[in-house]
Amino acid sequence: MVVATQSLEELCINSIRFLAIDAVEKANSGHPGLPMGAAPMAFVLWDRFMRFNPKNPKWLNRDRFVLSAGHGCMLQYALMYLTGYDSVPLEEIKQFRQLGSKTPGHPENFLTEGVEVTTGPLGQGIANGVGIAMAEAHLAAMFNKPDCQIIDHYTYVILGDGCNMEGISGEACSLGGHLGLGKLIALYDDNHISIDGHTEIAFTEDVNKRFEAYGWHVQHVENGNSDLEGIAKAIEAAKAVTDKPSLIKVTTTIGYGSPNKANTHGVHGAALGGDEVQATRKELGWEYPEFEVPQDALNHFRKAVERGAQSEKEWNDLFNQYKSKYPEDAALLERMMSGKLPEGWEKALPVYTPESKKDATRNQSGATLNALAEVLPELFGGSADLAPSNKTYLKSSKDFQKGQYDQRNIRFGVREHGMGAICNAIALHGSGLIPYGATFLVFTDYMRNAIRLSALSEAGVIWVMTHDSVALGEDGPTHQPVEHIATLRAIPDLIVYRPADGNETSGAYKVAVEKRHQPTLLALSRQGLPNLEGSSIENAAKGAYILQDSQGTPELILIGTGSETHLCVEAAKQLGNKVRVVSMPSWEMFEEQDEAYRESVLPKAVTNRLAVEAGTSFGWGRYAANSISIDTFGTSAPGGLALEKFGFTVDNVVAKAKALLG
Amino acid sequence: MVVATQSLEELCINSIRFLAIDAVEKANSGHPGLPMGAAPMAFVLWDRFMRFNPKNPKWLNRDRFVLSAGHGCMLQYALMYLTGYDSVPLEEIKQFRQLGSKTPGHPENFLTEGVEVTTGPLGQGIANGVGIAMAEAHLAAMFNKPDCQIIDHYTYVILGDGCNMEGISGEACSLGGHLGLGKLIALYDDNHISIDGHTEIAFTEDVNKRFEAYGWHVQHVENGNSDLEGIAKAIEAAKAVTDKPSLIKVTTTIGYGSPNKANTHGVHGAALGGDEVQATRKELGWEYPEFEVPQDALNHFRKAVERGAQSEKEWNDLFNQYKSKYPEDAALLERMMSGKLPEGWEKALPVYTPESKKDATRNQSGATLNALAEVLPELFGGSADLAPSNKTYLKSSKDFQKGQYDQRNIRFGVREHGMGAICNAIALHGSGLIPYGATFLVFTDYMRNAIRLSALSEAGVIWVMTHDSVALGEDGPTHQPVEHIATLRAIPDLIVYRPADGNETSGAYKVAVEKRHQPTLLALSRQGLPNLEGSSIENAAKGAYILQDSQGTPELILIGTGSETHLCVEAAKQLGNKVRVVSMPSWEMFEEQDEAYRESVLPKAVTNRLAVEAGTSFGWGRYAANSISIDTFGTSAPGGLALEKFGFTVDNVVAKAKALLG
Repeated sequence: MVVATQSLEELCINSIRFLAIDAVEKANSGHPGLPMGAAPMAFVLWDRFMRFNPKNPKWLNRDRFVLSAGHGCMLQYALMYLTGYDSVPLEEIKQFRQLGSKTPGHPENFLTEGVEVTTGPLGQGIANGVGIAMAEAHLAAMFNKPDCQIIDHYTYVILGDGCNMEGISGEACSLGGHLGLGKLIALYDDNHISIDGHTEIAFTEDVNKRFEAYGWHVQHVENGNSDLEGIAKAIEAAKAVTDKPSLIKVTTTIGYGSPNKANTHGVHGAALGGDEVQATRKELGWEYPEFEVPQDALNHFRKAVERGAQSEKEWNDLFNQYKSKYPEDAALLERMMSGKLPEGWEKALPVYTPESKKDATRNQSGATLNALAEVLPELFGGSADLAPSNKTYLKSSKDFQKGQYDQRNIRFGVREHGMGAICNAIALHGSGLIPYGATFLVFTDYMRNAIRLSALSEAGVIWVMTHDSVALGEDGPTHQPVEHIATLRAIPDLIVYRPADGNETSGAYKVAVEKRHQPTLLALSRQGLPNLEGSSIENAAKGAYILQDSQGTPELILIGTGSETHLCVEAAKQLGNKVRVVSMPSWEMFEEQDEAYRESVLPKAVTNRLAVEAGTSFGWGRYAANSISIDTFGTSAPGGLALEKFGFTVDNVVAKAKALLG
Repeated sequence: MVVATQSLEELCINSIRFLAIDAVEKANSGHPGLPMGAAPMAFVLWDRFMRFNPKNPKWLNRDRFVLSAGHGCMLQYALMYLTGYDSVPLEEIKQFRQLGSKTPGHPENFLTEGVEVTTGPLGQGIANGVGIAMAEAHLAAMFNKPDCQIIDHYTYVILGDGCNMEGISGEACSLGGHLGLGKLIALYDDNHISIDGHTEIAFTEDVNKRFEAYGWHVQHVENGNSDLEGIAKAIEAAKAVTDKPSLIKVTTTIGYGSPNKANTHGVHGAALGGDEVQATRKELGWEYPEFEVPQDALNHFRKAVERGAQSEKEWNDLFNQYKSKYPEDAALLERMMSGKLPEGWEKALPVYTPESKKDATRNQSGATLNALAEVLPELFGGSADLAPSNKTYLKSSKDFQKGQYDQRNIRFGVREHGMGAICNAIALHGSGLIPYGATFLVFTDYMRNAIRLSALSEAGVIWVMTHDSVALGEDGPTHQPVEHIATLRAIPDLIVYRPADGNETSGAYKVAVEKRHQPTLLALSRQGLPNLEGSSIENAAKGAYILQDSQGTPELILIGTGSETHLCVEAAKQLGNKVRVVSMPSWEMFEEQDEAYRESVLPKAVTNRLAVEAGTSFGWGRYAANSISIDTFGTSAPGGLALEKFGFTVDNVVAKAKALLG
């Protein structure tokens, strides 16, 4: 097939396609099929609708773009290069998927400026989109004034069949529909091919009808390969619907233009191969050598720079008006955008003494959240339908709902994984919001990938996980975490805290709030615990500290975490003055301390150590040769009896310690 | 309100309600609300429809009942006691949620005979229901004859709002609709209350419309509190639809009968309290003391025993006919039901020599699965849309699809969590099927809870997880597992294998197939690996063994797993004869060996050890003080370069070993 002279739009679209084809070919690795099929919708979106400034990817009021089908990242890199992002020059396109490049195999926000979130694990991106739209709605309600709509951007998502099959997308989109997020517009690349083949082998549901059931506005563009006006009209119609999120199903051909591989799963995740690249060039009438973009197309794309500068300038003018009219609000927003916390915020953290009421750390967490809400207007979060158990409700606020987006309590519903991705997105919105998400610790299993992505993508989320051991009692082994604390400690860059009392809970929040580019997970007790002599916010923030010391070099160090720390303290009283008790609420923060401090707490020479933690022994080898642990599943029984059954009593700690003291 | 003399049906329904009320009250813990509201539908289902034999809960062709809303387990225990299950006498009802009872806080199949699956984590049960219905459809297609429908049972599920909010239910139900599982009937207890309050705060989607979009037959019983005929008619209509699963939305009042707590979240998860129990007795005209069931009601319920015996007898007669007409099929089914493997099956396991082709363990896994398929007709599974990458497709069979349920390749779609629960249910169907489910190792994060439940509920699933390290290369850190092997080892009762070569892969399958009540997870390489001198199926089955020994007591033990084992072997060659190389594909199986064997492989006295594994060091403290590990996220680069960057080269192993040898 010989193509006549191409229109400018065709040139632009084919420029995207061939950058993707050539980059995947050079890497001999990657996913050309999606960029080739989705190039038309992406071009229309970026060219006619998206408001962004390539030269300032951090401009607050930019429209957000999320490629939920992250494997198609060459689509995004091509658009970023073409529209003039400095982070993706042509050289980086040529280094696609190579060590040290800015163009990794899936979009990584922490590596490539202008990429909003990290996608690839399917469904995360569309759930992130819901979270970004929630952040926008919340900020708009917090800051906008009738005469100054300073927060006013859209969130656009491209997602694929795989995203729509994943449960996480259903969770988030159901919530998005409930919340009526009118500025969320998702383009569903309906190419009916996944890795196993045609979607007819596993995925024959009516996606649009499902989204209608969620309360979304839905449309269908039947010819997404060339009906640019149809795509544009659909996006316009979606923008016109302000009380519902929009799904635009755009039917496309995966690998469009490849004469032998289009519409097959062979083009999903592998380079086309030299012959097929040539055949595709011929099919699409593309005479340019590899990586070359026709000047007309590049000139057209690069108008985004000027357009973006103009958009940002207009917004800056508006924001200047806002500053003069509403200086207090403006100051708050500027502080939030800067990533700075208000001076003295940490004074709000509750402080306890041994005389303070014995209480569950989940309750102390609730008190802390409520205290922080007063000084940190950026705090915004909630629970996956366990607010009364997780103690996460902010009493000074109401529910974040349609018509009251200024409120701060998010009702996530029983949707842990969706919650996870939403919290990540709120953090990565970059506007200073501090998200928190809560469930039972055992149900981190439902949201592991989102927690992992919070760490990978440097999202400063606070994960509030209560009911942190068999001590939760009667709900039994399905609800009792055993291995969970260990498995969370194993995630790189995630800070895990298991506080022993009120001060340590406050200390954990001190770290969590300060770490704006690293997530912190709190494991909290259901049951009441005494407030310990010697605990403090400062000590807890160090991760581990001497709670009660021996006279001279200790003959044994008892290391406790969370609800077992007080057992160590009581045991030590019976063991005389040879024993040191170390409270170790956070391995990660302890490992951040300098060598001298670490040696002062856990001297290398003292190898006689006993860790006491109501969870698996797995991993404790790093700090203690011996432990009182649970290496089996739990049991349904009242919490006290469950603890006793597994050896979490003062008597047992004393007995084990005596055996080690010889 | 004074109630006139109750009908027998009302007596029966109130018997369920008050057993639940009284048991929760005595335990002062539990969830009375669901049993009180769902008692009518459960009564109609168990009384008029369910075919089961309380005296033989293992009867193969029984209808299966799954309480997906597992927190409402007193509903199930009450029904089991009332219909005459020996596993739940009244004494056990009185011991609800107590240490050592058969009536734990959520249903546990491994503890209470007659409970089919372990539920509680929301959404698992309905996904299990899809899996049970798939098992039934598959067995029916394998074994039924036009004149002998020996496999012919329904799967009934009661699920709640929480189940419907969870992504896992969406995944499984979309697949169930695709597969047209006509004998799956789900009753949705639409009580519009969850823990946080009324579902209107987070869950306002149109559930029935969503299920219609999945391809389900849907109905709505508007008055589930008293319209018993309406419930019965809906179940009849559902049974009449044979090509689609059915959802019956039954609108109920949570805590029905409690004058002050019905229709509030206060009745969801806490005892009513003495006064409210009294008020409820009054409201419902219930004059019986606690735990007392009126004789008329008990007599009526206990007819299930005779009915069940008759049903089973009829089936036995049918099966006797089947045996005489189709002796070979019958022999196979009897073997499968017995849980025995065919004699000599293990001879099908491929054996390799060092001369065998260098290959990826994922390929060797694929060869093993295909070889096993020839001798194990009970093998039944597939991949979550990664069959070409996971190498799980059985070439001797086609896709398990509507109209060809006899085929063995399940196309799960991109639905890892749903796949997990489905595989668990296929194992727990109790008919001898051996399920396997596959995805990339990193995406175990999407299905952690289902993997955990396979271990807890003693489901002999084979989890096939490929692309097991940064060596997968260009897909980058979102796809590269780092902490995953450790976090899976931390799950109690899960056997994890990371084989080094072909023989070890076969050895892993030997264990996995033999362990019919324990799951095994295989972590497999994407990249090619040499077949090692000294590896064997028998050695691998021991979990760890000496692959290459030192002369005399080793001065250093190198411990390798999976794709790093051959690095240890090559390094040892350079290090002279002071070094022992231990291959350790499975910690768990090694820990099952006797003390003498373990000491022979890893002598306590030899503490100078270096573990080499392309994953986190977390947990290795148990076996080796030193390790070459990855404690950060991975990187997008060709696999070889990624391995090199993180130190997985022979040179680096040699260097580290030399440092340790001093």
